[in-house]
Amino acid sequence: MPLLPLVGVIGVSQPKEKEALMAFEVGKLIGAMDLAMVCGGLGGVMEEASRGCQQAGGIVIGILPSGRKEDANAYVTYAVPTNMGHSRNNLIAHAADILVAVGIGYGTLSEIAIALKLGKVVLSYHSWEIKGVKHCKNLREIEENLRHFFCQPAVG
Amino acid sequence: MPLLPLVGVIGVSQPKEKEALMAFEVGKLIGAMDLAMVCGGLGGVMEEASRGCQQAGGIVIGILPSGRKEDANAYVTYAVPTNMGHSRNNLIAHAADILVAVGIGYGTLSEIAIALKLGKVVLSYHSWEIKGVKHCKNLREIEENLRHFFCQPAVG
Amino acid sequence: MPLLPLVGVIGVSQPKEKEALMAFEVGKLIGAMDLAMVCGGLGGVMEEASRGCQQAGGIVIGILPSGRKEDANAYVTYAVPTNMGHSRNNLIAHAADILVAVGIGYGTLSEIAIALKLGKVVLSYHSWEIKGVKHCKNLREIEENLRHFFCQPAVG
Amino acid sequence: MPLLPLVGVIGVSQPKEKEALMAFEVGKLIGAMDLAMVCGGLGGVMEEASRGCQQAGGIVIGILPSGRKEDANAYVTYAVPTNMGHSRNNLIAHAADILVAVGIGYGTLSEIAIALKLGKVVLSYHSWEIKGVKHCKNLREIEENLRHFFCQPAVG
Repeated sequence: MPLLPLVGVIGVSQPKEKEALMAFEVGKLIGAMDLAMVCGGLGGVMEEASRGCQQAGGIVIGILPSGRKEDANAYVTYAVPTNMGHSRNNLIAHAADILVAVGIGYGTLSEIAIALKLGKVVLSYHSWEIKGVKHCKNLREIEENLRHFFCQPAVG
Repeated sequence: MPLLPLVGVIGVSQPKEKEALMAFEVGKLIGAMDLAMVCGGLGGVMEEASRGCQQAGGIVIGILPSGRKEDANAYVTYAVPTNMGHSRNNLIAHAADILVAVGIGYGTLSEIAIALKLGKVVLSYHSWEIKGVKHCKNLREIEENLRHFFCQPAVG
Repeated sequence: MPLLPLVGVIGVSQPKEKEALMAFEVGKLIGAMDLAMVCGGLGGVMEEASRGCQQAGGIVIGILPSGRKEDANAYVTYAVPTNMGHSRNNLIAHAADILVAVGIGYGTLSEIAIALKLGKVVLSYHSWEIKGVKHCKNLREIEENLRHFFCQPAVG
Repeated sequence: MPLLPLVGVIGVSQPKEKEALMAFEVGKLIGAMDLAMVCGGLGGVMEEASRGCQQAGGIVIGILPSGRKEDANAYVTYAVPTNMGHSRNNLIAHAADILVAVGIGYGTLSEIAIALKLGKVVLSYHSWEIKGVKHCKNLREIEENLRHFFCQPAVG
């Protein structure tokens, strides 16, 4: 079995309704594409994406800022508690092969910055307008980019 | 689906033959017990255990010291490259619910120390004689301890 | 003796001439204000600021991405090699009581993001236009902000 | 001005009386040798050594597990809060050119392990009996080893 890729979903813990919905849809998409997801393992965008991914049968790795597995949201499959606070953001940028950012927060910005520094593709919805980020207006554009990245033909 | 546990396997990259064999058997056991494994993702004890676990159908999370997924051994399922060098040892101690240490090395010792600091059970085979570690003379003793920890009845 | 504050200087390793000059002047200012400086310890903005600070008699703490003290620039007083790569950016944001950012790079952006997340004041010259950052057009504005922050009366 | 060395002092937060006294004396010695000290910045061995070092005019860098400078003991000169929990142990092992361990604790053990992995000299008093550590029975032996390491002639 070869090494399996991870799609990173990053975003704020208190998303607007639109952002929460998008996070859930992105998670579902990842699961439906038979991919696994990595995220910060907590609430908001992280939880909605985890819920979507698990519902679609995908595996979710949650890299937590605290040292307690209990802090993971209910849809994380494997928790990696770090007790490293904001430094765990850096780990998500490293672990993800491609990232989807949803919403605007400074933690999310630090993850985007490190991901771009590492030369990764960062898709974004309602997130930071940083040079290098690929803005997507809707789920379809995110899906097209993910399918293109993973060389999967479009569905339907 | 609830959060799934992780068994940590830690040990030297240049094990003696006996240790390499034991690492492989421990990995196989973890897979056979329907558990997932977390390790440092490189060679030696880490690779033998990963190989055993994958062979038995288990998932292996490899937390790498470098920033490159390519450095993972061939049996890692999901790689978490950290670019954090020895600090990644700490992450393995946090991610594992219980650990098995095989062989004697300073990196392994740092993982044992943090795991014990966190109050985790550390089983060991041919490893450091540190107060708090549970020494196991053979695979059977390791199996008994793992089954006891996960409340699985012994087989056969 | 009370705990002494640290001024963070963050920025690119290949600055434009104007940015390098500003970094040097900011370093000199920090030393002249009897303050100590913390930075990433490498070249470019980090080195110019270190040089200025040392010239003015200030102490420079360099938090290095590598594990080797030899990688520190020639003007670092105390080196803290981390072998943690980009995660060391996070440490600079934590160690600094106030930060000055010079120039545009993704590493600098990650430091700004974490510093703002922590509620720190970030002064910037020719750097990222991020909400929360305090833009300064020249050295005088930087000096005014630093003196205000440390409750030092303006000079002359 | 060249890069200045750092002597690491590591040890438990609840030392026995003998260990606390030794930590204080080691700190005083470091300051008297015109050296700077790095430690974990908290209480017990760390605080006693910091107190001794400051009393003798030395500088103390405290690398804290929390993200709050306020957690530093009263004798730290520069605080580097990490919010990285036990992973900060690794930073002390990297920052120190030579280490003195006092007392027995798992955190101290992890620091010793990483320091030995990095090939550093670890002097110990009442601490772990690990292969590679240089045991010292009294302050004089610690002083002799430190003076030898830094090529300083013995006093008196």
